[in-house]
Amino acid sequence: MTAYDIIMKKRRGSELSNDEIEWITKGFVSGDIPDYQMSALLMAICFNGMSPEETSALTSAMINSGDTYAPSKELGQICIDKHSTGGIGDKTTLIAAPICAACGVYVPKMSGRGLGHTGGTIDKLEAIPGLRTSLTHSEFISIIREAGFAISGQTGSLVPADKKIYALRNATATVDSIPLICSSIMSKKLATGADGIVLDVKVGDGAFMKNYGDAEKLAEAMIRVGKLAGRKCTAVLTNMEKPLGMAVGNAVEVVEAIEALKGNCPEDLYEISITLAAEMLFLAGLGSPEKCRELASEALSSGKALKSLEKMAELQGGDPKALYDYTLLGIPTHTKEVISDRDGYISGISCEKTGLISLSLGAGRKVKGGDIDPTAGIIFNKTVGDYVKKGESLGKLVTSSSCDIDAAAEEFIRLFRFSDAAPEKAPSVIKIIRN
Amino acid sequence: MTAYDIIMKKRRGSELSNDEIEWITKGFVSGDIPDYQMSALLMAICFNGMSPEETSALTSAMINSGDTYAPSKELGQICIDKHSTGGIGDKTTLIAAPICAACGVYVPKMSGRGLGHTGGTIDKLEAIPGLRTSLTHSEFISIIREAGFAISGQTGSLVPADKKIYALRNATATVDSIPLICSSIMSKKLATGADGIVLDVKVGDGAFMKNYGDAEKLAEAMIRVGKLAGRKCTAVLTNMEKPLGMAVGNAVEVVEAIEALKGNCPEDLYEISITLAAEMLFLAGLGSPEKCRELASEALSSGKALKSLEKMAELQGGDPKALYDYTLLGIPTHTKEVISDRDGYISGISCEKTGLISLSLGAGRKVKGGDIDPTAGIIFNKTVGDYVKKGESLGKLVTSSSCDIDAAAEEFIRLFRFSDAAPEKAPSVIKIIRN
Repeated sequence: MTAYDIIMKKRRGSELSNDEIEWITKGFVSGDIPDYQMSALLMAICFNGMSPEETSALTSAMINSGDTYAPSKELGQICIDKHSTGGIGDKTTLIAAPICAACGVYVPKMSGRGLGHTGGTIDKLEAIPGLRTSLTHSEFISIIREAGFAISGQTGSLVPADKKIYALRNATATVDSIPLICSSIMSKKLATGADGIVLDVKVGDGAFMKNYGDAEKLAEAMIRVGKLAGRKCTAVLTNMEKPLGMAVGNAVEVVEAIEALKGNCPEDLYEISITLAAEMLFLAGLGSPEKCRELASEALSSGKALKSLEKMAELQGGDPKALYDYTLLGIPTHTKEVISDRDGYISGISCEKTGLISLSLGAGRKVKGGDIDPTAGIIFNKTVGDYVKKGESLGKLVTSSSCDIDAAAEEFIRLFRFSDAAPEKAPSVIKIIRN
Repeated sequence: MTAYDIIMKKRRGSELSNDEIEWITKGFVSGDIPDYQMSALLMAICFNGMSPEETSALTSAMINSGDTYAPSKELGQICIDKHSTGGIGDKTTLIAAPICAACGVYVPKMSGRGLGHTGGTIDKLEAIPGLRTSLTHSEFISIIREAGFAISGQTGSLVPADKKIYALRNATATVDSIPLICSSIMSKKLATGADGIVLDVKVGDGAFMKNYGDAEKLAEAMIRVGKLAGRKCTAVLTNMEKPLGMAVGNAVEVVEAIEALKGNCPEDLYEISITLAAEMLFLAGLGSPEKCRELASEALSSGKALKSLEKMAELQGGDPKALYDYTLLGIPTHTKEVISDRDGYISGISCEKTGLISLSLGAGRKVKGGDIDPTAGIIFNKTVGDYVKKGESLGKLVTSSSCDIDAAAEEFIRLFRFSDAAPEKAPSVIKIIRN
């Protein structure tokens, strides 16, 4: 077996065997296969794709490169995970996970940090003073046992192959390949070891998958890989043509999530969070999808989910008072209200650009390992479908960083598209694919 | 400008600008662009190709990485070069170059060594005892002035970009891409600086281009690049479905070439050599193609071309007596005659396999920098179209190396395909493309 032959085989459009995929992945991680051969193979995969069996084999090979977990064995109870492909203003984990926990379903959530214009749950959560996301495995398990869920950063030994392959893809324009995205996501989800996984696949301008067709393909690829690994998977395709909810940033999103758990939730955020939570409960076997949706709504409206979040925050070292006094999350040093200069219906809000403005305010990191400003972000006062009058506030920019907030405000006003008639309402949840 | 953007642009199928191609090639040669980005780009080129302008830009960028020559300025006269894409038994340079020299046209030929199953002119020539192919530039020029032509190995500073890119292509299954083959060949030919170039594009089982369509595409790509660089180019598509002539190896091919210059030449070798020489004379402006063919034939039949080769061999340090006493080229220690076990017409001879047998006898090098046995090779006694009787000799294997000559003989007999009726005759010269 040689790397040359494997590259040529893929270049010619043939299917690689399990052994070939295992061999080259292992060799790449160990350093026996040089970067330049792997990048040539990755590019050939971008052009010729991978079959479901190849994608599964790649995912398995990546999982085998590091530690794997079986939390349900340790906890003696079914565990359900969720994953989002990443969007703008996505704080659904902070709502759906406490809901599941409140319904008695364990959620062992390992999450990533944000990079570029999309945020990471870990960064958002760390806006709560004192809260630690670097947990030992035994801490992680014991917090789940007590609070029903825990949210931890990924450890170095979780799928090292993914870190190495992703870094190479990121340097060689081979990121946006469905089998490669699928194996990257699913290797981490499967290594984490939950019995069921709900995949929130974002579609639209602010998402990685810009169109419905690609999002559906990715969703189906992930479900197939999950199924071949013996896990239950559901994919929920959700709208990312506008920022999710009304807040984008870190502390501002934590506030929005807490408010949601207190019953004050924008419609789109509610719909998606409840759907994700319900699908998680469904995978846990709590009844029909309709029944699970009722359970999820009840957990939220009763305040039980808020209590779960409070307990989890406290167990992870955070100050639980911050859930009731938001000033404890930090007060931005600069605030800028942005006023509409016209009347009309808001027909659209550029989503990816929202992420870039948030980034420019300090809410995200431009380079890996960079610092973020937890107080920075955007709070919308109007959203798609709203009628706005000239002089009314469109939203507020907040930051404690040295940045050009006036320039950001100018960019902000350009996010909005207007129409004279009320725009047609786009559904927040586009499709649910159960396996 | 970033390597990422350039790779992505090519991956998306867009055309790269001259600046982008120049920048990435320069960066790759200097080491600023890592191998893994270049290999991803090369793979994307394999899939999406390059326009004539892009191929020209890549060729120019590669030329700019090293030294360039202008022999016609130094010699005060037009210079014509030839290049072969490589085949089995190809000794046409040793016939066509002396013919041109005999007609008063200078041929500054820089040539490569063989690797794998195809031989290199430099290796063949070095079978002449004492002959040096490592010439200084001033030696090269003064030998051309005196003998009309010289054949020199390539120096390290001739297109270093090609060496580096080729090594990477060879490791990443990106060799067989027409624009990449074209830029590799043409960068070296254009850097060498001849005013006109005749390209012998081999087609068939023993050639790099297995089918006519690819060969024609490569020929046209090379002519376009030559034209864009202001040079005259002619491509001659020639048959490589059988070994060229009757000898394959080093000394045995030198003998066949010398015999050709003495008037004893197999039909296919004669036809191709005379055509190449005539096209070289045509590019030098010696008259119509028909007139040039007459001049070439005359130079051969008069013995003038042989005299040119003799002079060149002597000036390059070789023993000119070897042209008349072939034992001076070395006597193989082992010889094996291979006898036909059947009657019939020879309808085909596997060409690539002939090269592999020659390699196994020691005539080629299996790894770069390896030694070769100048005495090793194959001499056919029968060729395609001949009728052979059981018991007649098909050919002779010769070697001075420790190798399994009996196994080679068994392989040799399997090269031949037989038919009851005389096979249809394939033309040696398939097409001439003049620009």
